[in-house]
Amino acid sequence: MNFNEEMTKRTESIEVLLKKYLPKEEGWQKNVIEAMNYSVTAGGKRLRPMLMQETYKLFGGEGTEIEPFMAAMEMIHTYSLVHDDLPAMDNDEYRRGRKTTHVVYGEAMAILAGDGLLNFAFETALKVFETDADKTRAARALAVLAKKAGIYGMIGGQTADIEAENLGSKVTQEHLLFIHEHKTAALIQASMMIGAILAGASDSQIEVVEEAAYDIGVAFQIQDDILDVTSTLETLGKPVGSDEKNHKTTYVTLKGIETASREQKEMSAHAICLLQSLELENDFLMELIRSLITRIK
Amino acid sequence: MNFNEEMTKRTESIEVLLKKYLPKEEGWQKNVIEAMNYSVTAGGKRLRPMLMQETYKLFGGEGTEIEPFMAAMEMIHTYSLVHDDLPAMDNDEYRRGRKTTHVVYGEAMAILAGDGLLNFAFETALKVFETDADKTRAARALAVLAKKAGIYGMIGGQTADIEAENLGSKVTQEHLLFIHEHKTAALIQASMMIGAILAGASDSQIEVVEEAAYDIGVAFQIQDDILDVTSTLETLGKPVGSDEKNHKTTYVTLKGIETASREQKEMSAHAICLLQSLELENDFLMELIRSLITRIK
Repeated sequence: MNFNEEMTKRTESIEVLLKKYLPKEEGWQKNVIEAMNYSVTAGGKRLRPMLMQETYKLFGGEGTEIEPFMAAMEMIHTYSLVHDDLPAMDNDEYRRGRKTTHVVYGEAMAILAGDGLLNFAFETALKVFETDADKTRAARALAVLAKKAGIYGMIGGQTADIEAENLGSKVTQEHLLFIHEHKTAALIQASMMIGAILAGASDSQIEVVEEAAYDIGVAFQIQDDILDVTSTLETLGKPVGSDEKNHKTTYVTLKGIETASREQKEMSAHAICLLQSLELENDFLMELIRSLITRIK
Repeated sequence: MNFNEEMTKRTESIEVLLKKYLPKEEGWQKNVIEAMNYSVTAGGKRLRPMLMQETYKLFGGEGTEIEPFMAAMEMIHTYSLVHDDLPAMDNDEYRRGRKTTHVVYGEAMAILAGDGLLNFAFETALKVFETDADKTRAARALAVLAKKAGIYGMIGGQTADIEAENLGSKVTQEHLLFIHEHKTAALIQASMMIGAILAGASDSQIEVVEEAAYDIGVAFQIQDDILDVTSTLETLGKPVGSDEKNHKTTYVTLKGIETASREQKEMSAHAICLLQSLELENDFLMELIRSLITRIK
């Protein structure tokens, strides 16, 4: 297997799928739809839908029922970035090398575009009921999506992150892990769990996936913290050194770059070990997980 | 039937139901949950869940499957107010006689609280699958909720409303009706349609409900425009005269208060006529619809 080729192929097919699910830019509401689509088509790794699809395949999934959830997940991830970038939040002007949504469309439209994407994510995911998916599995997948994106998932993590900003260097490791688990790992957990659920995994298999995805998510976030110290604007597509500038406590400031790097590798290895214990096969998925902690952007 | 007594009884029971579905204020994410609950418990007419429940009863619904949707609808209505009040949107400091969410909790937390409420609305509505509701009806009700709240419903209306602000007095009647239909009527349509769907109404009955709810929603909005001219801060709980101050085109500025008032009464009567054509009985619902255009706040 040529991993990079396979990766490119998958990313491209996810781009095509995403475009299929994006709303048409027409009507009196054209402006907000343009802002939504600008945000979604800004690129990115499409990691979450990819992990979802690969986990679905891991459990033998072969249908198209997974597609609305793949698109929905990327919409949720994108809305969180649009709102995160707002002046009242992180106040970022660049994202993935392009101007952020509020810079291009104004603040009011960026707020509505974020709301629009979150809402449209559910509209999109609910299309699962138009496929021949098992309704009980579909309902369970929807519940996981909603929970992991909300106050007991991503939004909970964002809230704890804002609290952390006010605490500065007083942030504890426990607090930081809560942020990483919820702000980053929760959507990765949802992605992989939904793949497993729709493919018909058992309760205990879904639990294993949830645990592995926790490790993957936290390791992924630590890599983000490492890159903020070691990368460049050109490579990363956004300013580096922003954590230090904002006196932000990260895994790197808390433990030093070597320990953070070691623990991150252990988490990644643990995730792969857990998934291998399922005795199912998806070489690409394992390689994808390994690649996340060696990525340079 | 003593309408006011019945109304009070129903509002109180909706308050109890809402509190049952609100998240507990605990954990690292406590702050956002407090902001969410502050917004939802600010009071209000609870019109949407009430219309939902009464339409459900109109079609003979007797179960509890309607409850998660009643709570979800009020959460969606509330999140839209929280985001509407933000400085980058309407920049309102008072709502229902209390300070708005961003004034009390800060702008970042108000953005997250709005996101949290929208997301939690879906988390809550999805609990319908934990009841013994018919899964096909539940899926259809969820799709209606998502569509009417999103870019083809409320968010579409909010977008067109922002466009209208830039146009000032150049706003046409067609544009204004689009705003009223989407920004206000869409959630009222969703409320009544969900009640009908879950109670097992036929496709043609659901269409009648959708059409009636359009009239109710637009008439309701025109009453808002009328009260902005004729009411007082004390009665309304928010500043009056804001439309004129903001040079906003409303049904009243476009047609004059007498024509606006007459057309609104016609719409309300048309809605009641449509619902009576179903030959089902719910006297309270008819009285409730009549009361919406005579209300003083």
